[in-house]
Amino acid sequence: MTYTSTGSPGSIGGATRSYMGSDDGMKTLATLLLLLIPSLVLAEDPLPSWNEGPAKQSIIDFVEKVTDKNSDSYVPIYDRVAVFDNDGTLWCEAPLPMQVYYVLAELKIKVAQDPTLAEKPMVKAALAGDFEKLLQGTHYDGLVEIIGLTHAGMTTTEYDAAVKAWVKTFRHPRFDRTLAGMTYQPMQELLRYLRANDFQTFIVSGGGADFMRVFAYRIYGIPTNQIVGTNTLTKFELVDGKPVLMKTMEHMFVDDKAGKPVGIHQFIGRRPIAAFGNSDGDQQMLEYTTIDNPYPSFGLLVHHTDAKRAYAYDSHPPSSGKLVTALEAAPKYGWTVVSMKDDWKTIFFGSE
Amino acid sequence: MTYTSTGSPGSIGGATRSYMGSDDGMKTLATLLLLLIPSLVLAEDPLPSWNEGPAKQSIIDFVEKVTDKNSDSYVPIYDRVAVFDNDGTLWCEAPLPMQVYYVLAELKIKVAQDPTLAEKPMVKAALAGDFEKLLQGTHYDGLVEIIGLTHAGMTTTEYDAAVKAWVKTFRHPRFDRTLAGMTYQPMQELLRYLRANDFQTFIVSGGGADFMRVFAYRIYGIPTNQIVGTNTLTKFELVDGKPVLMKTMEHMFVDDKAGKPVGIHQFIGRRPIAAFGNSDGDQQMLEYTTIDNPYPSFGLLVHHTDAKRAYAYDSHPPSSGKLVTALEAAPKYGWTVVSMKDDWKTIFFGSE
Repeated sequence: MTYTSTGSPGSIGGATRSYMGSDDGMKTLATLLLLLIPSLVLAEDPLPSWNEGPAKQSIIDFVEKVTDKNSDSYVPIYDRVAVFDNDGTLWCEAPLPMQVYYVLAELKIKVAQDPTLAEKPMVKAALAGDFEKLLQGTHYDGLVEIIGLTHAGMTTTEYDAAVKAWVKTFRHPRFDRTLAGMTYQPMQELLRYLRANDFQTFIVSGGGADFMRVFAYRIYGIPTNQIVGTNTLTKFELVDGKPVLMKTMEHMFVDDKAGKPVGIHQFIGRRPIAAFGNSDGDQQMLEYTTIDNPYPSFGLLVHHTDAKRAYAYDSHPPSSGKLVTALEAAPKYGWTVVSMKDDWKTIFFGSE
Repeated sequence: MTYTSTGSPGSIGGATRSYMGSDDGMKTLATLLLLLIPSLVLAEDPLPSWNEGPAKQSIIDFVEKVTDKNSDSYVPIYDRVAVFDNDGTLWCEAPLPMQVYYVLAELKIKVAQDPTLAEKPMVKAALAGDFEKLLQGTHYDGLVEIIGLTHAGMTTTEYDAAVKAWVKTFRHPRFDRTLAGMTYQPMQELLRYLRANDFQTFIVSGGGADFMRVFAYRIYGIPTNQIVGTNTLTKFELVDGKPVLMKTMEHMFVDDKAGKPVGIHQFIGRRPIAAFGNSDGDQQMLEYTTIDNPYPSFGLLVHHTDAKRAYAYDSHPPSSGKLVTALEAAPKYGWTVVSMKDDWKTIFFGSE
């Protein structure tokens, strides 16, 4: 659809004038004008931080295909569900995932309040950066102990306040940027582009749901109820007559690997048509989204190939973001692989 | 704001013609027209099936207060979260909750396929209507066994198809109405009224999330991701290369009583400002919503007082919908109590 803005209004004016005599006419005119406005907006490049190439083109082709009402590939708005991993997909997870920085900062505060904590072997290991030790054993008991110390035993209000306070002080050790500044500009554009095309965007992450919810609306425009993450139960009580939710470590659900499709079913309740990840932990989410889906579907992997502007890793990542089997599966299932080095003009949000 | 529809378009026509020469003008005109349209709609009674009185007035006062930008009570759209119990609040739960009818219908199908099932004591009890027996013991083992037989051991696709098939055949034993026909007309109007005022409406029910999700968008306009209910985990697998989610009975979360605020935190992640229920099972949800909330808040209990047009019950309900302690708490916390007999002109959807 094209629209010439400099000409006389004659091309639609005749019809317009005859519409204006009734309420229905008013509504029709308003609808017509609204149809014109998006076409003006969409004429701009929706993904300006993406270099031209097959990755960018595959995104645009998919979005245009599923939003074209005259196409067999049209997907109703209700079913335009897009799911995004967070760590390594929407923001940087190197040298450590952001939530680990929170855990370490919080542990230091706890130890200052109660120095006996520092004698616990797992606290010692965490503060010394010996993460291998935390991950020993079949049930990751060390990691669970540390998460319990920093993510449970307080009210949800206290937890939110602690995360908020930390967000204000956080700066990335290498880039000296804030949390929001460590999100990827091209992915922020992708979130906006999908929403402009009536997609609902969800985070589906192995990170803590309560952690992400503190800031995700502000930095991604994603509301708390569109965030699926690792979670545990709270306990409801009236304390001095006031409602309180205490965070516990009970009933833990780990939203990673085969847990991601499970979390999607549990929290979203319908199958996505687009999934975005960066590691083997996202493979099952991409499989669930793209294999045997009655709708057209789209899978994308962000490949960390840019050591200069960010980090380069796949099989030996600085964190949990190993990308081996999913990368092998990509050609088989037609998943787009994005090379950060080649496909992205800019890496970090607002860094142009 | 008034708008005369019968006059010539001259009143805004002059402005229109001068607007039409530029893009900005087009947008301004579209905006103006859109401002007119909602005012035409909102001038009508938003709750036509509610009798005039304190209950109806309390709803309208609350909505007007939190949407008035010039008021101290204004609540940003992001935080306009409203939560609704389902059984007995949005639709009839007598003589048995709808999901029990599904369980019984499904049990009969299973027994026909495998007659040895009929020998199981709990299956016998269920088919004989001996629900007391199912609820014996501290862990409701009988009930869990029956739920397991009818809600687990199949894929999510198979389960959805079974519920869909049942929905088509269901008719209420007393009213001979469909599922949609057993929803309450006044509550349907309330859902629409809140949404027209930019509330997000969620179901928070003790019923099965997967059960409600099959039809809730069609009958309530509530999407799957805004339904919080009792849930268990699924298991993700590729079977013959195709993704499958198997329903299991593991990791059960019961979304009732003190579980409702817990479910709200887990799935919605922010505190509601309005809560609607009908039983003691909704008390904690109303407490969480209305006590010590930094925003203005609203709680409402549907009281089943109409034996003639529906059912009358509170302390001796036909199902689990006991309303005793919540009714006692209502005056203390300022919750609106709706008498179905006195406050509702119509009971069932589309029954005028």
